[in-house]
Amino acid sequence: MPFADTSTYPVPDGAADEDILMLADILPTGYEVGVLNGGVRPGDVVAIVGAGPIGLSAITGARLFSPSHIVAIDLADTRLEAAKAFGADITVNNGREDPLEIVRSLTDGLGADVAIEAVGVPATFELAAALARPGGRIANIGVHGEPATLHLEDLWIKNITITTGLVDAYSTPTLLKLLASHQIDAGRFITHHFALDDFDQAYDVFARAADTGALKVVMSRTA
Amino acid sequence: MPFADTSTYPVPDGAADEDILMLADILPTGYEVGVLNGGVRPGDVVAIVGAGPIGLSAITGARLFSPSHIVAIDLADTRLEAAKAFGADITVNNGREDPLEIVRSLTDGLGADVAIEAVGVPATFELAAALARPGGRIANIGVHGEPATLHLEDLWIKNITITTGLVDAYSTPTLLKLLASHQIDAGRFITHHFALDDFDQAYDVFARAADTGALKVVMSRTA
Repeated sequence: MPFADTSTYPVPDGAADEDILMLADILPTGYEVGVLNGGVRPGDVVAIVGAGPIGLSAITGARLFSPSHIVAIDLADTRLEAAKAFGADITVNNGREDPLEIVRSLTDGLGADVAIEAVGVPATFELAAALARPGGRIANIGVHGEPATLHLEDLWIKNITITTGLVDAYSTPTLLKLLASHQIDAGRFITHHFALDDFDQAYDVFARAADTGALKVVMSRTA
Repeated sequence: MPFADTSTYPVPDGAADEDILMLADILPTGYEVGVLNGGVRPGDVVAIVGAGPIGLSAITGARLFSPSHIVAIDLADTRLEAAKAFGADITVNNGREDPLEIVRSLTDGLGADVAIEAVGVPATFELAAALARPGGRIANIGVHGEPATLHLEDLWIKNITITTGLVDAYSTPTLLKLLASHQIDAGRFITHHFALDDFDQAYDVFARAADTGALKVVMSRTA
């Protein structure tokens, strides 16, 4: 492998190959672009908009900093159930409930210390921006295809910080240590296994994630 | 004065009363919300959109960190002349010239390390956001009355940081020291003097700043 010294890390003893797969992209993305950019600190109220695998990675990473509450927000109850299993304290289906009201009720009306956007459409970015308290941070993880509205008429005075980013994977050594010490459970993302011969079925299960509950699908020579 | 110990500072020996006036609002605003939030560092290319008194304060503050280039951008040549006098290295009239092209030509095509917005309308915020390089910072100082468009389809991958804020004046002790040591020249903002009896004339001169070149107008019992 060319340049292996600059782009690969040794797998810690005892770590499962499958768990390591989750460190290639989703866990460092949620950790670096969501949690570290968002500056999550002990006692914070952290609102995470979107509870797909990236949102669940952000929940996993945020818990390392001992926030007081992690609020997961999504339109799909199946994803909110996963968020609960990954450690969200409160789940909000924003098709039925008002996340602003729920986050404000937790924070004396102020809003979330950190709001993490983990979807990638204007509505979810705008929701994350609205959820942040004065002095708060809004960390965008989502991959966006169109512009969002930035409500500067509200935000200019609120001392907020907005960050964007693409994963760099500088946190991989940290995440490997956390995996080895069982402080994060990467295997929890893996909901399905398929043999390579069953590619079509694997794609189908992954494509219908809302029905199948698929988070990550692992394919191997033997299922 | 109630709570004087928590809201006032002694004036350093030798500081002119008039100079001190400039520390009540504009200098800490430009310094805190523009320069410190923007994280200006030695060698940076700093683009400042708007060369009114707040933009000039940001130029004054940015120079303390030894950027390689300060680029001041405005539609009024009179304000750009002031920017030059305050220490801008390059001035751009964006009614006639393309600030993106000029900033890119200075930065191997990358953009400004720090872009400071010092106007408060959507177009200038959007220009500041477009001027920032990947990994750059966009510090909003402007007081906005309406939303801006945030081009997340470009910015999501650029690892940028956007900050907003209202001046807090925590930097007042620092600015007083810089004034006393003559490292900043606050008196330079004062273009006109009036006696209190000439209030109407003073307002008129300040209101027609583009014609009169007024930056700050000082009124006193005797002019």
